[in-house]
Amino acid sequence: NSPAMSTEARLAAWAARVETAIERRLPSASTEPLRLHAAMRHACLNGGKRIRPQLAYASGYLLGADENALDDVATAVELIHAFSLVHDDLPAMDDDDLRRGRPTVHVAFDEATAILAGDALQALAFETLARATAPAAVRIALIETLARASGSLGMCGGQQLDMDATGRVLARADLERLHALKTGALIRASVRMGALVGEADASLLECLDGFATDLGLAFQIRDDILDVEADTSQLGKTGGKDAAQDKATYVSLLGLEASKALLDELSEKMKAALGPLPEQADGLRRLAEFAVTRAY
Amino acid sequence: NSPAMSTEARLAAWAARVETAIERRLPSASTEPLRLHAAMRHACLNGGKRIRPQLAYASGYLLGADENALDDVATAVELIHAFSLVHDDLPAMDDDDLRRGRPTVHVAFDEATAILAGDALQALAFETLARATAPAAVRIALIETLARASGSLGMCGGQQLDMDATGRVLARADLERLHALKTGALIRASVRMGALVGEADASLLECLDGFATDLGLAFQIRDDILDVEADTSQLGKTGGKDAAQDKATYVSLLGLEASKALLDELSEKMKAALGPLPEQADGLRRLAEFAVTRAY
Repeated sequence: NSPAMSTEARLAAWAARVETAIERRLPSASTEPLRLHAAMRHACLNGGKRIRPQLAYASGYLLGADENALDDVATAVELIHAFSLVHDDLPAMDDDDLRRGRPTVHVAFDEATAILAGDALQALAFETLARATAPAAVRIALIETLARASGSLGMCGGQQLDMDATGRVLARADLERLHALKTGALIRASVRMGALVGEADASLLECLDGFATDLGLAFQIRDDILDVEADTSQLGKTGGKDAAQDKATYVSLLGLEASKALLDELSEKMKAALGPLPEQADGLRRLAEFAVTRAY
Repeated sequence: NSPAMSTEARLAAWAARVETAIERRLPSASTEPLRLHAAMRHACLNGGKRIRPQLAYASGYLLGADENALDDVATAVELIHAFSLVHDDLPAMDDDDLRRGRPTVHVAFDEATAILAGDALQALAFETLARATAPAAVRIALIETLARASGSLGMCGGQQLDMDATGRVLARADLERLHALKTGALIRASVRMGALVGEADASLLECLDGFATDLGLAFQIRDDILDVEADTSQLGKTGGKDAAQDKATYVSLLGLEASKALLDELSEKMKAALGPLPEQADGLRRLAEFAVTRAY
């Protein structure tokens, strides 16, 4: 990742880099238990967008953090993301057969294997951070950040709120809280962990936290819009599921136009938050733009 | 826990102590998401035997480790144990309705909540260790030990081998490997983590690892014997499930008498391993005796 690279090329290089790092971190498909490791690899090595790893690299890059140390952070956040998707797709949860254009883990394998693969991916995320190439005190901060973001007061809590909300009309504040946990917590953690590796000071951490909060919300609103507007082949997952499952979404709550207006508003807020930062923040800027405009 | 206490009283005090520590570590039942936190509390605060916490305290006590630091270790290993039971009981796994005389989490709540509660308990275990009252380097060693013991090369891997083995005849070496991972890995980690808090040297760690390996095996063999001999009311879980589910067990493989003989052999090995250690190892000695003789 040379300084002369374009931001686009840098983001693509980070996505490729984390793919290699995850591949190396996962036990090989010839390691026992074969079925479990095959399922873990199916869950992780499947052409995901790698947004969270890119966020971790981009925020570390802003601080000149060592990219080898960022590999571990990027791997850990993506392992947590992959685990949450595997469990979220289970029949008892969202019951989805298709993910990124391929059969979900419980379809390709079986439910028990999917439950265990998710569990093992979570453990591997924390093992990865414990062994990261960063000082012990930084590793501890990373683990605490990721554990909190993943647990009952973060991502898992948001998934629970989402299950609880199915079929109910939510107030906007409730919907916002749901998504701040369900998808926002891990996005915030990704940005923060990159910055922790770069030993950001408290005021920059706070600025980045605010940015990442808006970014998480923007991703979710765009997701809700895409679920209505895009078809299954574009998404690589089943479109129209939210309405079919009677899920509370921004679109169902505010309508399509107001959701798009809110997205524009968040875009402006994110630009303002990153405004004072140097061009090394261009990765974060580009990811914010992607969150708002993406078609998949 | 005064030096004048009997070993029995000390073990009981540790079991009570971890109950309080877990209670304090879990978000209250009035913290949102209410349903998730209620399920997490149901899974953990239900009169388990607290063997793994007792092992951590007992091995830390041998080294004079601070009991406040051991509280965090004991809590973390029990949170992992509780999470594994919640997921193991799911319909797609062992499909059990009863655990410790009470409805399992997916019965008392629902499957989605049980999946999420297990996930959140795992995250909380690592958060607890990240925030433990021990030096950062020790905390890192604890997290690495627990993550490895929980993951695909430890407990989750053993559960997968167990699922894969259902309905098949296993060779004894395969059965041993299955249990070394499924129940053995977390038992070994519990003993090791207590010793890590006490900053044990490499030779003592090795001695304790050997002891803990035999202890894990002894627990499993006794479990298999009890599943045949005891009834549901004594066990607090459904008896006779192994045979009904066509599970490979020591009893089905070796027969009842040979299983009991193997248990005696392990008992002697454990006594020999602890032989050179001072009376501060009496907690470990008593737990070894319990593993071999317990009726529940």
